[in-house]
This record gives sequence, C-alpha cells and structure tokens, in this order.
Amino acid sequence: MTMLSKRNPQLNKHGELVHLLSTEGLPRAVIHQILDTAGTFLSVNDREVKKVPLLRGKSVFNLFFENSTRTRTTFEIAAKRLSADVINLDIARSSTAKGETLLDTVANLSAMHADMFVVRHSESGAPYLIAQHCAPHVHVVNAGDGRHAHPTQGLLDMYTIRHYKKDFTQLTVAIVGDIVHSRVARSDIHALNILGVPEIRAVGPKTLVPGDLKDMGVRVCHDMAEGMRDADVIIMLRLQNERMSGAMLPSAGEYFKSFGLTPEKLALAKPDAIVMHPGPINRGVEISSSVADGQHSVILPQVTFGIAVRMAVMSILAGNEA
Amino acid sequence: MTMLSKRNPQLNKHGELVHLLSTEGLPRAVIHQILDTAGTFLSVNDREVKKVPLLRGKSVFNLFFENSTRTRTTFEIAAKRLSADVINLDIARSSTAKGETLLDTVANLSAMHADMFVVRHSESGAPYLIAQHCAPHVHVVNAGDGRHAHPTQGLLDMYTIRHYKKDFTQLTVAIVGDIVHSRVARSDIHALNILGVPEIRAVGPKTLVPGDLKDMGVRVCHDMAEGMRDADVIIMLRLQNERMSGAMLPSAGEYFKSFGLTPEKLALAKPDAIVMHPGPINRGVEISSSVADGQHSVILPQVTFGIAVRMAVMSILAGNEA
Amino acid sequence: MTMLSKRNPQLNKHGELVHLLSTEGLPRAVIHQILDTAGTFLSVNDREVKKVPLLRGKSVFNLFFENSTRTRTTFEIAAKRLSADVINLDIARSSTAKGETLLDTVANLSAMHADMFVVRHSESGAPYLIAQHCAPHVHVVNAGDGRHAHPTQGLLDMYTIRHYKKDFTQLTVAIVGDIVHSRVARSDIHALNILGVPEIRAVGPKTLVPGDLKDMGVRVCHDMAEGMRDADVIIMLRLQNERMSGAMLPSAGEYFKSFGLTPEKLALAKPDAIVMHPGPINRGVEISSSVADGQHSVILPQVTFGIAVRMAVMSILAGNEA
Repeated sequence: MTMLSKRNPQLNKHGELVHLLSTEGLPRAVIHQILDTAGTFLSVNDREVKKVPLLRGKSVFNLFFENSTRTRTTFEIAAKRLSADVINLDIARSSTAKGETLLDTVANLSAMHADMFVVRHSESGAPYLIAQHCAPHVHVVNAGDGRHAHPTQGLLDMYTIRHYKKDFTQLTVAIVGDIVHSRVARSDIHALNILGVPEIRAVGPKTLVPGDLKDMGVRVCHDMAEGMRDADVIIMLRLQNERMSGAMLPSAGEYFKSFGLTPEKLALAKPDAIVMHPGPINRGVEISSSVADGQHSVILPQVTFGIAVRMAVMSILAGNEA
Repeated sequence: MTMLSKRNPQLNKHGELVHLLSTEGLPRAVIHQILDTAGTFLSVNDREVKKVPLLRGKSVFNLFFENSTRTRTTFEIAAKRLSADVINLDIARSSTAKGETLLDTVANLSAMHADMFVVRHSESGAPYLIAQHCAPHVHVVNAGDGRHAHPTQGLLDMYTIRHYKKDFTQLTVAIVGDIVHSRVARSDIHALNILGVPEIRAVGPKTLVPGDLKDMGVRVCHDMAEGMRDADVIIMLRLQNERMSGAMLPSAGEYFKSFGLTPEKLALAKPDAIVMHPGPINRGVEISSSVADGQHSVILPQVTFGIAVRMAVMSILAGNEA
Repeated sequence: MTMLSKRNPQLNKHGELVHLLSTEGLPRAVIHQILDTAGTFLSVNDREVKKVPLLRGKSVFNLFFENSTRTRTTFEIAAKRLSADVINLDIARSSTAKGETLLDTVANLSAMHADMFVVRHSESGAPYLIAQHCAPHVHVVNAGDGRHAHPTQGLLDMYTIRHYKKDFTQLTVAIVGDIVHSRVARSDIHALNILGVPEIRAVGPKTLVPGDLKDMGVRVCHDMAEGMRDADVIIMLRLQNERMSGAMLPSAGEYFKSFGLTPEKLALAKPDAIVMHPGPINRGVEISSSVADGQHSVILPQVTFGIAVRMAVMSILAGNEA
C-alpha cells in the first residue's frame, strides 16, 4: 500500500483516491467504485440526476487556465447537484496575469477555503504540480491537461461501456481518429487496459496514429475496415483541426472518405456495436449524421453519464483524507 | 384543444404552457394565470420578492447567443429566487465556435440534465427551433430573438398595466418610438390585443413606425400630440441607435423635439396616465429626466415586477409536461 | 449620534453600520464588532469557514466596474458561506456601455431585489455616490475605489494584527512600498489610528512615499533600516507597476536592493515580528521568497481571515436598517 501511494500521487497511504489526475495507475477497484457510485446518482430511466447534499458547505473552484465552456459546465452542474458552492475562475483574466506564479495563485485560493480544484490547463502535468503543492485539505481533479490526460472523460467512457456491454473481458474496442493529439484516447487506453479489455485498436492515418502506441498494448490499424471488423465498441475522436499543423492535416473530405464513420463502415462491426464520441462532433468530418443520430449511437447518454461520473469522483474525493 | 396545440408550439395537448416563445397566440387565461402567479411572489409593499423552493433541484441554463447582461441578470435572479441551480453559458465562447451546430449544442446541454433553457439569440425564430428539437423534459423561454419577440418583457408590461389600471377593456395605450426594430413593441401589441385593449397606438416618425402595423389592429400616429391625447398608458421605447442604419436615423436632438416625452407632451394624456419604459433609458433622447423620475413614471416598479413575472413563467412551465 | 451620522454616510442615526465605504471615520467599537464577528465564523484551527444561513434569501450583487478576479472571488465565497444568492455583474459589458448612467444602472439593479452591492470602481468616491442614491434597503460595500480606499482589506489586516499581537496600543507598524498609489495603505493607516497604534511608519522612496503622509499621523522613513527597526508588524505592498508612470518607476532590481524585504532587513525588526502582504506578491521585487514563505509570514492566514471578515461585514450590514 505504501509502495502504491509512493508510485501514485492520486492515492493516500490507505490506497484511497485523494486526487484524480489520470486514469493511469488507478487500481481496478477504485475505477469500479467510481462507476458504482455514479450509478447511484442516476434515476431508473437514466435521464435524471438527483440533487444530493453530499458536498453541502464545500467549495469547488473551477480553475480553467484554458477555456472550455463545455467541460466547465459539466463540472459546475455536477458540483451543484452535490449541493456544493461553485466558484468559476477565468484564470486568464486574474492575478496570474499580474505576474503571480501558478503556485502562489493556488496557495491563495487554497487559503480562501477551497475544498476542491477542478483544473484545466494547456500544459501537461500542471494538475500534478498543483496537487503536490496545494494545502492538504484540497483535492484536485484534472479536467484536461495538454495532450496528457482527461480522466473524467475516460471514466465516463468506461461507465458507458460497462452500462451497455456489462463485461470488459471479452471486448474489442476501436478508438478512431486523431489519437496523437488526444488526451481522451490516452485516458481511455489506460482505463481499458486496467479493466482487462483484451483488444484495443487505435485506428487512423499514420500521421495521427503513431506506431509506438503498441507499447501501450494497443493494436495499431491504418486501415478502417481492419479497425472496424467485429468491434463491440467504437470510440470516434474529434478531428482537432486547431491542434494540427498544416502539413499533417488531411483535407476534411479525404479524411471522411478514409476514416469517417458511415453506415457502411459501421456494418463491419458487431451487430450490437455501440458508437461513442466525446463531443463536440464534426458531422461529415469524422462521423456521418446518420451514424451520429442512429440506433448504435450512445453519444448523448455519454453526456448524462458524465455528470453522474463527475459527481461520483467529487463525492469520493471529499470523503478521503490526504 | 388539439387544434390549438398544433397551431401553437407553446402549449401541450391540454392547452397548458410548456414553452414561452411569444405572447402571440397565448390564451387570455394563460396570460392571467402568469400575472396572478407573479402577484403571489411579491410582498405587500411590492418591494420584496420571496425565495421559494418551487424549482429546488432543477437546472436552469441561460443560453445567451447574444450578450445582454441586464436580461440575463433578471432571469438569473428569478431562477435563484425559485431555488433552482443556474448555469450561465456565454455561447459565443463555447463549442459552437468549434463548428458544432446549434441543435447539437442544445442536444448536449439537454443531456446534461437541463430542465429549462432561457434563450437569447440575434436571429428571429431560434428559440422555436430549439423548442422543437430539445428533449421533451426541457422547457424553453424566449429571452429575446432578433426583432421578433421578447415575451417576458411583454408580460411584465401587462402586469404593470393591470397593477395600476385594473381593467384592460377601457384603455388607450400609446407605444412611442422605434417600433420597427422593437421586439418589445411586438410582444406588447399581441398581449394588449389578447387582453382586449380597445385602442393601441403606435407613435413615431414614418421611418420607425411603418403603416402596415395597422394589420395588427394598431392606430398609427406620426404626430406626437395625436398619439398622447387622453392616453392611459404610455410605453416609451429606447432609440436603438445600434440597430439603425445611417439614413433612417434622426438626430437625437431632432428626435427628442418631435417624440421625446416631456412634461408638456405628457400633459396631453390622461391626468392619471402611467409612463413605462423597458430600459435602459436614454435621458434627453426619448424621455426627459423630469418625466423619467416623475410621479407618472412606473419604470422602476416594472423592473421589480419583471422578476416576479419571470418567476411565474418558470414555475408554471416546470409544472407542465410536454 | 446625529452629528456622527451626518458626518459619516456609513452609519445610521443609531450609529450602526449601514454601508462600508472606508475605514476612515469608523467608530472603534464598530471595528471591534466586525473583528469579533469574523472570529465566530472561523473554526478552532483557523482553516475552515463555516457555512451559516445568515443571508439566506438575500441577493448580493458584485458590481465590478474594474476587473479584479481575486477580490471578486473573496466576496463571492463570503456571500455563499452566508447562504446568499450571488450575482456577478461584469459591468464593462452591460448596459452602461449602451449609454445608461451609473445611477440609472444602480436604480435598476436595486429594483431587481438587490440587498447588497459590492462595488469595485476605478474612480475614487464612486461607492459613496451609489450609497447616496440607491434604494434604502440596499447596503453598499466598497471593494476598492481608485486610490482612495479598500476597507475590507484594511479590516482583515486589523484582524490579522489583533490575532497575532492582541493589543494595538503598544505596536510599531511599518507599511513598506508604493504607498502613494495604495488604497490598502490608506485604509490601514486610518484603521491603525482609530485602534490606537502609537507608531505607524510609511517606508519607501520619496517618489512612492510623499512627505504629506505626516498629516495622517504617520512617520515617514525613506531608509529601510530605520523603517524596520523594532517593528512588530510589517505590511509589504505590491509594486503596482501598472499604476506608475515611467519617470517615477525604479527598476525592479534597484527597488529590491533598497526596499525589498530580505531576511537581513527583517532581522532589524522585533524577533516575533509578523510580515503581511495584501497579495498578489511579486517575489524578488518587494519581498524575497525566503521571507514570503518563512516563519514570520502570515500572508496566507490573511487570505483566510479575509473571508471571515467579509462575512462579518455583510452579516452586520444585513442586520441594520438605513
């Protein structure tokens, strides 16, 4: 146990979650605890998320060093469903602009009675730095750092897969698209490995799916037909135009022809395959409208599950002491 | 009833309000239900608005595709008075900027456990599109769409008139100013017609008060004295400089001379006439300070009533099922 | 009493606080009432601030005509700890930009059921103007106006000094740095005088510490060693680069050499001296990291106390009638 907490800054000496920084290194039992807890917040029809008083009197600070209205909103709703006080900080406009260091900003916010920081940052590792230096009563949740990790997205993807497929140990999961730039792909791959998925495929052109992904236990497919064949779960990624340099960028039309998910390509997967996407979707770029809106798509349920998973993470963290 | 709900997307098959998109087509009984409900939220001295738990556990999303701090604030306060969780979304900075469609944004937000969307949009009809496509558990309130409608402003104006004048069926109401660009004027005219006001006047220069307003049962007056004569209620509109093209724009001084409300012009109206304005006022442009701050002015009570009316709309919507 | 309330717009005819605009002119008993009340909100370990229902159903409006994320956040947290509804208004983007006057904006917000305005403004005196003209049920808290005052910072500094030093009447307090531009320094000096501190020193170069500060009962020191000698309390100020014109600006290195607080200079003060700073700190400009993070520093406790002091001010104001 002590070994484990030395290796992993996310866990205390009892092996309990005190920060959520990455899906990498999370014990399988902790992942299932999060997914089980998330389930308790959803109503029978999976449409409603109950309001509960678990974080009453606690203050959750959304520290967004990089703008992301969508992700910030999901955390804000999750925290309010838990009855927490939520403070949104647009850090780009705050004292850091006056030359204050990141760690001084964090120390100040800790002293303002923060119980939890939800951190989005353009640099990989920033949430780790904050977790190492913030006051011991503060819990840190990584809401996306650079290309590194987006663990709550990874966990809501696991919730979605478990919800529709029950057992991870027989699955073929295909992740398709711009994997090299995707923190979602990384977080998914780590979680799928921990949960015992036997076949994880990374599907896309060579510029977007590097060969060294094999080191993560992933089968690399540069051919879409090969990638789709008999897949149980297909995770489509957004073509992140804004992160790609000109030379690497396939044209949208060319990309769609090769790797865009159409009914024809989807027909190669298992008949009961589910189609996921972290959103926002680019219709006609990485996914056709008929698939996005079709019966295999679980894209909107993912969003609802995401609120419950974020509530689960925050309520578990609040119950554990560093 | 079925006919009515087919004609009017605001009503369910029982004729109950499920979205508030326009005052046009609202049954008279529904308008009075809203005004009666609003009255229950005001204290005896009309200064306080009570906090009630009617929307506890519900999430109200302010979707402002067009910036309007004042209107957004009134809805935020109204929702918080009802104990709802409020999420403010500055859509201009969110995923729509990444190429997501309006309807995908709305579908995602619905899936995030939204119960109500308050929508402000520069294009007429956008709230209708959203109401048609959002999940059945979501209610839509139009907070102003293009030049089309601003129904909560129309309803708070009706609350104000009923409060001071009791009976609509004997009134002369003069709406003065930039009527062609005004969604407020449109919402007022529809509501006044439904409530049985016998004389509605549209007063202003030809460039701002087109002749075809007669089709809405309105008497068009291009002469201020004629417009003011024996009026019970005067609704002054803001000169929306920012919406007018150069050629149509009268100079502020010229406009004030002809159509600005001064004590002299007000003297032509009934001795107990009330003066209204949706705000923000342009002193010395469409209204003199002595009138704005005078004993006939009910401009500030309008603001207080506005909170209660918005609470009424939201609490009624939350109680009805699509 | 009547005289006093005529002289001081902050007090009602019973001498009770109804607005907090400045520490100048506050009765000593009122300051101690605020500090005593603040203490009741802090836990025994001074780390937690309890959530209490004292402002349940009240609406606190943060009116920031000048951007300050840090100060706005402390007020937002304080109000939420008191269970108030909090409305943040970014005034730069609101109706004032449409030509509405400050007083019309304030009248409108009052009518929207505001109970309290927290006002930050670049012009000295703006909160006074608002307090004079807002509805009688609204309380105004000055969150910083121009170079004039920042009374809640002054009061949290007094809380900090009383916490560590108990008795004000034997103390030597040195305020160091850019005093001419500092509303914090002004608010501190008034409060220290009222509380009976016998020696207040203003320490810094002639360009930043004008001689006429002597009129406020302050000893002016242009030599750091003289300023530090046997001091009990050292209040370091931020070098406000953004407020200084080029000619007056010492280079950061030169300034640090003369007036930056280092362990060597601190050694001249009393052995149990405390070091304070309103933040954000400029490491290596006005303070060395070893002092900022050292055992004499109470900079982070100041932040925690600040939440409690702001809660105290707001709860006392809410209990008093104009």
